[in-house]
Amino acid sequence: MNDASAIGLYYDSWDTTFKNPFGAVQIGSEIRFNISYELAHSEFINRIELELIHKETKSFIDMKKSEDYYFISQTFDEKGVYFYRFAVYYNEHRYYLAPDTVVNGGIALLYRAEDTPHYQLTIHTQIEKVPEFYSEGIIYQIFADRFCNGNENGLLLDHKKNSFIYSDWSDTPQYIKHKDGNISRWDFYGGNLLGVIKKLDYLKELGVTCIYFNPIFQARSCHKYDTADYMKIDSMFGDEKIFKELIDKAKERNIYIILDGVFSHTGSDSIYFNRYGTFEEKGAYQSKTSKYYQWYKFKDYPDSYEAWWGIGDLPNVNEMEPSYLDFITGENGVIAKWMNLGVKGFRLDVADELPEDFIRAIRKRMKSIDKDSVLLGEVWEDATNKISYGERREYMLGESLDSVTSYPFRRAVFNFIKGELDSKGFYDISMSFKENYPQEYYKSALKLIGSHDVKRAITELETEENFRMAITIQLLFLGPVLIYYGDEVGIPGDSDPYNRASYPWDEYWHLGKKYSFPDGNPLKNNSIYQHYKLILDIRQNNSIITKGKVRYLPITDHVMAIRRYDDKDEIIIVANSSDSQENIVIEASGKSYMDLMDKRITDTIGEKLSIEIQPKCCMVLKKLL
Amino acid sequence: MNDASAIGLYYDSWDTTFKNPFGAVQIGSEIRFNISYELAHSEFINRIELELIHKETKSFIDMKKSEDYYFISQTFDEKGVYFYRFAVYYNEHRYYLAPDTVVNGGIALLYRAEDTPHYQLTIHTQIEKVPEFYSEGIIYQIFADRFCNGNENGLLLDHKKNSFIYSDWSDTPQYIKHKDGNISRWDFYGGNLLGVIKKLDYLKELGVTCIYFNPIFQARSCHKYDTADYMKIDSMFGDEKIFKELIDKAKERNIYIILDGVFSHTGSDSIYFNRYGTFEEKGAYQSKTSKYYQWYKFKDYPDSYEAWWGIGDLPNVNEMEPSYLDFITGENGVIAKWMNLGVKGFRLDVADELPEDFIRAIRKRMKSIDKDSVLLGEVWEDATNKISYGERREYMLGESLDSVTSYPFRRAVFNFIKGELDSKGFYDISMSFKENYPQEYYKSALKLIGSHDVKRAITELETEENFRMAITIQLLFLGPVLIYYGDEVGIPGDSDPYNRASYPWDEYWHLGKKYSFPDGNPLKNNSIYQHYKLILDIRQNNSIITKGKVRYLPITDHVMAIRRYDDKDEIIIVANSSDSQENIVIEASGKSYMDLMDKRITDTIGEKLSIEIQPKCCMVLKKLL
Repeated sequence: MNDASAIGLYYDSWDTTFKNPFGAVQIGSEIRFNISYELAHSEFINRIELELIHKETKSFIDMKKSEDYYFISQTFDEKGVYFYRFAVYYNEHRYYLAPDTVVNGGIALLYRAEDTPHYQLTIHTQIEKVPEFYSEGIIYQIFADRFCNGNENGLLLDHKKNSFIYSDWSDTPQYIKHKDGNISRWDFYGGNLLGVIKKLDYLKELGVTCIYFNPIFQARSCHKYDTADYMKIDSMFGDEKIFKELIDKAKERNIYIILDGVFSHTGSDSIYFNRYGTFEEKGAYQSKTSKYYQWYKFKDYPDSYEAWWGIGDLPNVNEMEPSYLDFITGENGVIAKWMNLGVKGFRLDVADELPEDFIRAIRKRMKSIDKDSVLLGEVWEDATNKISYGERREYMLGESLDSVTSYPFRRAVFNFIKGELDSKGFYDISMSFKENYPQEYYKSALKLIGSHDVKRAITELETEENFRMAITIQLLFLGPVLIYYGDEVGIPGDSDPYNRASYPWDEYWHLGKKYSFPDGNPLKNNSIYQHYKLILDIRQNNSIITKGKVRYLPITDHVMAIRRYDDKDEIIIVANSSDSQENIVIEASGKSYMDLMDKRITDTIGEKLSIEIQPKCCMVLKKLL
Repeated sequence: MNDASAIGLYYDSWDTTFKNPFGAVQIGSEIRFNISYELAHSEFINRIELELIHKETKSFIDMKKSEDYYFISQTFDEKGVYFYRFAVYYNEHRYYLAPDTVVNGGIALLYRAEDTPHYQLTIHTQIEKVPEFYSEGIIYQIFADRFCNGNENGLLLDHKKNSFIYSDWSDTPQYIKHKDGNISRWDFYGGNLLGVIKKLDYLKELGVTCIYFNPIFQARSCHKYDTADYMKIDSMFGDEKIFKELIDKAKERNIYIILDGVFSHTGSDSIYFNRYGTFEEKGAYQSKTSKYYQWYKFKDYPDSYEAWWGIGDLPNVNEMEPSYLDFITGENGVIAKWMNLGVKGFRLDVADELPEDFIRAIRKRMKSIDKDSVLLGEVWEDATNKISYGERREYMLGESLDSVTSYPFRRAVFNFIKGELDSKGFYDISMSFKENYPQEYYKSALKLIGSHDVKRAITELETEENFRMAITIQLLFLGPVLIYYGDEVGIPGDSDPYNRASYPWDEYWHLGKKYSFPDGNPLKNNSIYQHYKLILDIRQNNSIITKGKVRYLPITDHVMAIRRYDDKDEIIIVANSSDSQENIVIEASGKSYMDLMDKRITDTIGEKLSIEIQPKCCMVLKKLL
């Protein structure tokens, strides 16, 4: 492949001169594609076709020629993810104009071979606005066993037979396994919902607008992804009454609750499967006459059955089996029960393993009860074009998920900070997502740097400097941000289980004993927490952070700028991932900028801002006038 | 080999006609050996020598000939374990009269070969009487973490960092191990000394006269054989004040306390070794200038050192290193400290791995403080002739241990009950021990059927019937009996850790939560406990059980009788290990006997008692007149 200028052509999907409008569009929109040409090559170009692929169908559309462009305007009447490229017949040879393999967007390259990447074109239905408490919010993720035990004396609300309690609240997490690697007993710290109620003011002060809970329904494990009873709060966490109290008290503080919905599988030790005869009613494992028998996928009844990633503890369900579908999404189903109690939404575990009709049924039930609720899906890749189980997933085209977990954001930010990705690379990745996602969803994608499924950010980033950069970039980015409990005080932790440590409250009761830190309140002395507070204050006091637009400006290899702006205001976040000070120049519309980190003011000269940026550091430059 | 009657000779070490006195004797005693001969063979017998071995010395003593016997009377002036056999020169050939290989005692066999077993002859010093609270007592063994948590709400007195607490008091014990099999974290139930205080009346009712505690000094593990501080009660168990209270309150009930002394090794995480820098003062591991450095046996300092069974957690000590010896046995040493507090003795862990001089120094210190104290040693085999580390151990010859753990008793009783040993075999084993042990020690040997180091009796014996037989035989045997906590209610359990389960109190608090059994008090409904009580009552109400003599009478292959008697009274315990009823005849001196189990009376006919005994059953026949 080659630069397309070799034959005098130029196309850039990220520039509205060439593709207009930018990015994803709604059904019925007309898109204009322009390919500029040079006169010198003009006579050799026989014709150019737009090659358009949608599902199994491929069509070729002749482009017209104007004075400046080969062009075509095309209206799209069916939603979906389309792919396209341009076939150029040049001097009796066929070439393709298509994007770079890695980026899948931006400036076109010239290919001889048939096998090229394609541009993506996302055609979506009308997209409902994602509620602001979420789309502009600060989402705080709580792993309930590890956050706070609200019992006055640190006792447990309930015990599970044959499990272990950490002797000390500050013990290091550890799985207790058989020799074969399977869990032999579950491990608990004893956090509960009462603890969350007690910490609502703490969350409010942090600016939290939404709590996302890892599963809290009855289950045997500490993580509760092995649901035993979807209709019951786990007895170690509390009960429905306490949960209702939490919902209400949170709401008084304009904080909303969303729950983890684990619907692709249940626990084997559930009232539905009942592998161990724990429950009185016969489960699917015990009898083919069980009303739950149809939910599961037995290969050789009863001991061989489909299970999530082959883990026998987690038998997969047939989501579209009518009785299951009704149980989850029906009028008196799981979704309805908790939404009616005041829950504001769900995060769907392994959303890409759920049938789309199932997700839509969940959404329908949710929105019928509360149109301002939010449906978040766990997706680890570009959610607009993910192929899962051989099928292209359409949950970003409207009427499905409102938001997805943006792990690619985390990866791009971390790679940039660690010097494994240069600023152009960060730009390309960011533009690719911006292009592929419907605008509303590009914003509402959950920007996260930590979760229960990845290493703690400070551990992965190795230094506090790096971690601070990540915090700054994340919290001043577009859309909702996720704070994984404890990241705000810099809890370290490698992969699971180490990323699920207990929150180090300065004073805490555990099993009837009071502990406190010898050096006093770690929050008050914690430079990471102070940094969080500083950046969160900036976010709070500048509406363009939550409501403004975003543009990426690669400055040098290791310096990147992110422009947050609207018609009036502007904040430029500049990040230097290198180990040395850099002197850079940024094009800037204002006359004077103040760094909100240290309050220093710099004036522009000729629409250019000359600044020194320290190594491993961010600046947050606010336009003053 | 052959029956010695082939050449007309007869010798039986268990019959005072042939060896008088029976068994072990004190220094200075004269022993008469008689070998009877038949006239028909007389002329072929050239001569008979007594071959006597003591340590490295072998001597040959010509026996004299009387009308009935070849005989010799020999006085022994040096203590020790002697071995002997007879060399018979018959018709110019040399034969040996020596015991059976398995039994090492009893009737002599005739051997041609040089390599024969030997009779044992134990010559001991004057033996101090073992105090009655012990030698006639009921010793109750408590594994402190598992017996009873006396805190009102079941909370723990202390926690150990990075350890686990069983969620439920009734959880099944489980080690938490790394993949390599080493313990990764210790597991605790939370039993403590306060719990023992609360249960003193329960023990009193059982007739307990002595509590033997598994180690209770500060240590990291749940079993505490890895002592961290010999001068401190483990903080999860209580403190010195509570321990003193326990000693005093027990004494009010005539119950005495003996402790487990673990002196062959310390914990690696101890104030002495300080492997992990847990303690402020430098330990042997940390500096060669540590005052504890000389205690240990480093091969390659500091990481390679001798450890008990190669377990790095348990570094071995040089017991005879003066500073260690003084630390343990000195005037202000470990023994003195706890004896002065009121402790009534020690059980020496792995006694056969301790130098005898070390044991003697311990004894000396103990007896100087309390002459009625008891020194019990952990020994698994015949303690009179055990060879350990290439040395014959002499702790049963006086001035050393007062008692040893009689695991061979357990093995013999179990094998008999399970039909793996016939009554003659049981007789032989019992006689062999009776012969080898000084009389006082034969009595004071601790008759046990369970401990923290073996499977629970009911589990090993498989049925309650079998277990009842074992209880009957044990509790009506000679000498002190050990009840391993919970055996009295039939707690099952395979090997460690399953033999260390929590005691199932009918009502208990654990971690602030009260539990009780749905079916009520298991003690009241427990047929095993009722059986214990019945047999213990018999023991209590018949002084010949604790003070009388013992004789074994094999009746049939599967029926064995044990005669407990003195000049006046008699109780015959009859045990039928077979699966069918047996009709047997026992020689009996009285006229009428009552079975104390069911109160039925049987009269003798011509000094014979004809009885039916049910399968898997014991009868306890008391002479009425």
